[in-house]
Amino acid sequence: MSAKDLYHEPFVRALRKDGWNITDDPLFLAIADTDLLIDLGAERVVAAERGKERIAVEIKSFLSKSVVQDLKEASGQFMLYEEALKRSPANMDRVLYLAVRLRIYASLFVTGIGSILLESHRLRLIIFDEDREEITKWIPSNDTGPS
Amino acid sequence: MSAKDLYHEPFVRALRKDGWNITDDPLFLAIADTDLLIDLGAERVVAAERGKERIAVEIKSFLSKSVVQDLKEASGQFMLYEEALKRSPANMDRVLYLAVRLRIYASLFVTGIGSILLESHRLRLIIFDEDREEITKWIPSNDTGPS
Repeated sequence: MSAKDLYHEPFVRALRKDGWNITDDPLFLAIADTDLLIDLGAERVVAAERGKERIAVEIKSFLSKSVVQDLKEASGQFMLYEEALKRSPANMDRVLYLAVRLRIYASLFVTGIGSILLESHRLRLIIFDEDREEITKWIPSNDTGPS
Repeated sequence: MSAKDLYHEPFVRALRKDGWNITDDPLFLAIADTDLLIDLGAERVVAAERGKERIAVEIKSFLSKSVVQDLKEASGQFMLYEEALKRSPANMDRVLYLAVRLRIYASLFVTGIGSILLESHRLRLIIFDEDREEITKWIPSNDTGPS
């Protein structure tokens, strides 16, 4: 089982519990003759006057030997996908997030080197508990509940 | 010979030809209990009233099987090192660049997927000719010559 498979389904179930519909698994973008695949596209209905909220999510396992190497790769994906989404007419309203497990968030992003990327608002995260299959926290916080 | 070694010395010689002194090889940063190594630190004297111009450079070979994977890693390093430099009192004035070979620049950054990161000013590049051992171009352009 690949590292991707290991946390993909638990995260999808956590996102559904949080009121989201999965629209794309994966989300396909073709930019500058290059195919990019982001793990998930999802949407949910917010207050009626605001319509639908749409997101794109890359699920990161952080299972390699070097957590700093994983962080570089995740940050680079975030930068590239964020610019690619802006250039995709069908997806430019999607807000991009990295999904990371609670224990990775605690070790890497609260006190670890990843904290400098949150301080500077370089990344957006969805933190999830893979055992309980629940979303724990959005960074920045997502205040709009489902309708 | 590692991919790093292959272009490290040609780039160092190109940078020296351009009037730069290598101050750190590698440049060491300790941030949030993590050690980061950027390939090079360099400086050169500009017009006397402006003092010294200082840079940090990560040399990227783009030699793996997937150029998009290499781009993600390079972009993530850039994001992480840029934030780390800001938090290093001894290095916060250094401007960060990725050094890439001319042929990689032409294939990946002029028309390829890397172009979206230049359009949006997410990266700074030093393009070099590894055979002639010369700097070809700075992005954004570096207008200050050596004094």
